[in-house]
Amino acid sequence: MSEIVTAAILAIGDELLSGRTKDKNIAYLASFLTLKGIDLKEARIVSDDQDAIVKAVNELRSEYDYVFTSGGIGPTHDDITADAIAVAFGVGINHDPRAMAILEPHYKARDMEFTTARKRMARLPDGSELIENKVSMAPGFHIGNVYVMAGVPAIFQAMVDALAPGLKSGVQLLTKSIDSPFGEGTIGDGLTTIQKAHPETAIGSYPRFDGENYTTQILVRSRSEDAADAAIAAIAQLFEELGKKN
Amino acid sequence: MSEIVTAAILAIGDELLSGRTKDKNIAYLASFLTLKGIDLKEARIVSDDQDAIVKAVNELRSEYDYVFTSGGIGPTHDDITADAIAVAFGVGINHDPRAMAILEPHYKARDMEFTTARKRMARLPDGSELIENKVSMAPGFHIGNVYVMAGVPAIFQAMVDALAPGLKSGVQLLTKSIDSPFGEGTIGDGLTTIQKAHPETAIGSYPRFDGENYTTQILVRSRSEDAADAAIAAIAQLFEELGKKN
Repeated sequence: MSEIVTAAILAIGDELLSGRTKDKNIAYLASFLTLKGIDLKEARIVSDDQDAIVKAVNELRSEYDYVFTSGGIGPTHDDITADAIAVAFGVGINHDPRAMAILEPHYKARDMEFTTARKRMARLPDGSELIENKVSMAPGFHIGNVYVMAGVPAIFQAMVDALAPGLKSGVQLLTKSIDSPFGEGTIGDGLTTIQKAHPETAIGSYPRFDGENYTTQILVRSRSEDAADAAIAAIAQLFEELGKKN
Repeated sequence: MSEIVTAAILAIGDELLSGRTKDKNIAYLASFLTLKGIDLKEARIVSDDQDAIVKAVNELRSEYDYVFTSGGIGPTHDDITADAIAVAFGVGINHDPRAMAILEPHYKARDMEFTTARKRMARLPDGSELIENKVSMAPGFHIGNVYVMAGVPAIFQAMVDALAPGLKSGVQLLTKSIDSPFGEGTIGDGLTTIQKAHPETAIGSYPRFDGENYTTQILVRSRSEDAADAAIAAIAQLFEELGKKN
């Protein structure tokens, strides 16, 4: 039960690297995976470029248990994620009968033409499984340990909800926090000593700057509640001692 | 003058991957570099882990003209970016006399102890140049093509402002936009034809979904204004024709 499960996210899209669009999917997935006990170890953003996508997917899928991608699965010429995933896995790509069976009646019922562009959304790498969702008719898909989802945040989130039950969970990392009225420079030496004395924890120090003064939030992460509590107690004592001196 | 200048950003910090903190520096740098005519090709986020930082820095600095990092240069034990950069470049790391000369009088004037933790902020890889800034006394630094900055957004931005004059600029990519009242499925086939006929442009299609209906924003990027205008005219004509049909 102490297995560590790891993941990476790859966000795909020129617009994320030009500053036009702020990515929202990385932060959403980060929070989701933390609750699930899965360690998000790395995030990458690359442009709509096949070589860049293939390289990133192959590096990340060999390194982590899960890879989640966002973006590039729509109906237009610049939606190239499915093709890139097929290249990364060395498989063919075809109109998937299950995806066609979802999309065709959808457009027929609305008296909309099932254009070549719309059919493009049913093209999946051979061997993929669909990720259906309640917001968009066009499915995401997964192949091996790679989960391919839409970039539009509402659809990305619906797809994450849909695939969640199938993911294996790790032991959740506990996080306890304590606020410091002092800046990092004041508490740094004491924290270093406490970190060394509490090796079962990872103590993170996060400076806050209001334009004039620094304060700090301390987060203690551990897979053992006792270890986290002991570190928090030591840090509280450090702050009390510093309060008498300063 | 048609040189393409490329860059990557590496954001460093456990808190960005746990969902606790939303990264703001990637989007800021993306907008800044776009104005400067530098192509941001990739963004990565890694945790406060020396091996992960070293690997990412070495991959990115060999691939792009510039690498910008954010985070991990403060005074506490979990601030390990400077050490990781020294390892990545295979150089030593020492208290830099120029950085010490900035920090020491700063704390002395405020009657604050120049603690081991605070001195830590003056430790720079051998061969580094300082990135001074107006918000924080503690400098960032650059070595080779790698620029190392603070994670706190106000300080990151001040450091970007400070280093900007020293960067070489490329030819700025022009972006023109046109809004489509249609979803991507309706315009996709026509856009594919237009993209093929206008190879000097990159046509990006960005779906918007209000929970019920799809519309689309089209961005045409090019280093030639004439080429961008010609593609925009062709797209406007496509929308006019579709408007008559739909």
